[in-house]
Amino acid sequence: MRITVLAGGVGAARFLRGLRRAAPEAEITVIGNTGDDITLFGLRVCPDLDTVMYTLGGGINEDQGWGRDAETFSIRAELAAYEASPDWFTLGDKDFATHIRRSQLLADGEPLSAVTEALGRRWRPGVRLLPMSDDPVETHVVLAGPEGRVVHFQEWWVRMHAATPAAQIVASGAERARPAPGVLEAIEAADVVLFPPSNPVVSIGTILAVPGIRAAVAAKTVVGVSPIIGGSPVRGMADACLAAIGVDTSAVAVAAHYGPELIDGWLVDDQDKATVDILGDDPALAGIEVRALPLLMRDLPATTAIARAALDLALELRER
Amino acid sequence: MRITVLAGGVGAARFLRGLRRAAPEAEITVIGNTGDDITLFGLRVCPDLDTVMYTLGGGINEDQGWGRDAETFSIRAELAAYEASPDWFTLGDKDFATHIRRSQLLADGEPLSAVTEALGRRWRPGVRLLPMSDDPVETHVVLAGPEGRVVHFQEWWVRMHAATPAAQIVASGAERARPAPGVLEAIEAADVVLFPPSNPVVSIGTILAVPGIRAAVAAKTVVGVSPIIGGSPVRGMADACLAAIGVDTSAVAVAAHYGPELIDGWLVDDQDKATVDILGDDPALAGIEVRALPLLMRDLPATTAIARAALDLALELRER
Repeated sequence: MRITVLAGGVGAARFLRGLRRAAPEAEITVIGNTGDDITLFGLRVCPDLDTVMYTLGGGINEDQGWGRDAETFSIRAELAAYEASPDWFTLGDKDFATHIRRSQLLADGEPLSAVTEALGRRWRPGVRLLPMSDDPVETHVVLAGPEGRVVHFQEWWVRMHAATPAAQIVASGAERARPAPGVLEAIEAADVVLFPPSNPVVSIGTILAVPGIRAAVAAKTVVGVSPIIGGSPVRGMADACLAAIGVDTSAVAVAAHYGPELIDGWLVDDQDKATVDILGDDPALAGIEVRALPLLMRDLPATTAIARAALDLALELRER
Repeated sequence: MRITVLAGGVGAARFLRGLRRAAPEAEITVIGNTGDDITLFGLRVCPDLDTVMYTLGGGINEDQGWGRDAETFSIRAELAAYEASPDWFTLGDKDFATHIRRSQLLADGEPLSAVTEALGRRWRPGVRLLPMSDDPVETHVVLAGPEGRVVHFQEWWVRMHAATPAAQIVASGAERARPAPGVLEAIEAADVVLFPPSNPVVSIGTILAVPGIRAAVAAKTVVGVSPIIGGSPVRGMADACLAAIGVDTSAVAVAAHYGPELIDGWLVDDQDKATVDILGDDPALAGIEVRALPLLMRDLPATTAIARAALDLALELRER
């Protein structure tokens, strides 16, 4: 069985750990969001790809969900002593090594997809990890307010904690980006496509913004897992992103945002079942099969059950 | 008083610490060798500039004479796990931060002299530290043997421990390099020029190979400190470098190599005094005032005495 997954960072990485357990024989291809990528201190940092790679490769900081385990912070302190900026993005020493190696390979002329594969030879994540594109795409945020100042997504997310509302979120460069080698092929060859509980705007949304990917995905049987439980994002500040695109922070609204032309099935948490029943007749949801189950990925068994439910629903819908 | 010093790495750095103590009121300009510079893992490493900066700035590993104090080696281990090469050049985590910051500023378009000044704002070395040139110069070694394989100086020195003899040592790019801004001015404005006990071939020799520097130095009163004591280099493998240019490993031979057109005074160790007396009539030394004193820089007082002797001799010769 071939499963292709569009992935953001922490939520996707944890979901994938469950999926690998739920479908140990499956060939899993992960298409990672690169819109969060940023050049810091001259080094290329790919937070979402690294979170997936470290999580599946056993090198993640389990408590925080991103960054390396047993990390030290010498370099960060040294760079601060040199008054290097920015000072708001925390990178540990081991993590720096990944960015040094990636930047070295990129400078040697390797495309990001080849670099990601090379880094993966160390981590053996048990999935095929592809960046959505080898072309640079950077998510920028137009801040609300008279100035309309534009900042990199990371600055808004990490430094500003998304406290200033976003008037607009733009995947800069996406319209000119080409899917990385293997991306469209992996979608086309997939038996099913899954959306983990990743941010619908700046993770899944950015991947879908690369020309060709949305259409390829729409042609497949797709099941998504709601990143919203009981009106709140499970993790992160997805509500701030959804507000920027005029979508309510609810499991139903996110499903309607994707729409039946894109997704076939949708998993919501048990506590959102009532809302789904009320809105069951919502024409925006017509054609989307919604199932309710506990969606908190509190441990590997719980996460495996969620992944299995997503996969089972997808296989069921595929037979219809 | 204005003193200009041509400097290699460890020996020069220690000498400079003594000189700063010997002449606390002097304006000291240090012209650092950049021929040892190398790009590792995509980052620009300037071993000699850093050794001077760390030593005078109080951040050096005192035992080994290079690298940072209280260093850790996470990044090195991580890069090895990524199978990044080379694996023969040891860089600590704190040291990496310097190279990251330098590379970032260079990539931003800053010349090495400006970058060195920026890094120095943190270290406050108490001297003005200038790279010999902003243009890339790399010392390469043509290995003896039928192949005549060419390696970077660092590979020969660090990986091969100079065990394979050098047929030739070439400062690649030196002939096209221009002295960095301020270099010729600092030599011209100097009351005296000093050569610390640095490698005569790959440190002092490389600096002198940058067009314009030798002539500017030759016009001044110059006193050098022998890096050879009793037929052996005090530190490092200067003998291997001297052999490559056909110069004996002796204090006298090195003085003769520089020659009276370049240097006016020369300090040798007490144990080399007899040789000097015997060779006192050597025409190659005619015009070079040789003085003997203990030259081992075993601690700061001893080093200060050596620096003071060099300075005193230079001032004396300047008055002649």
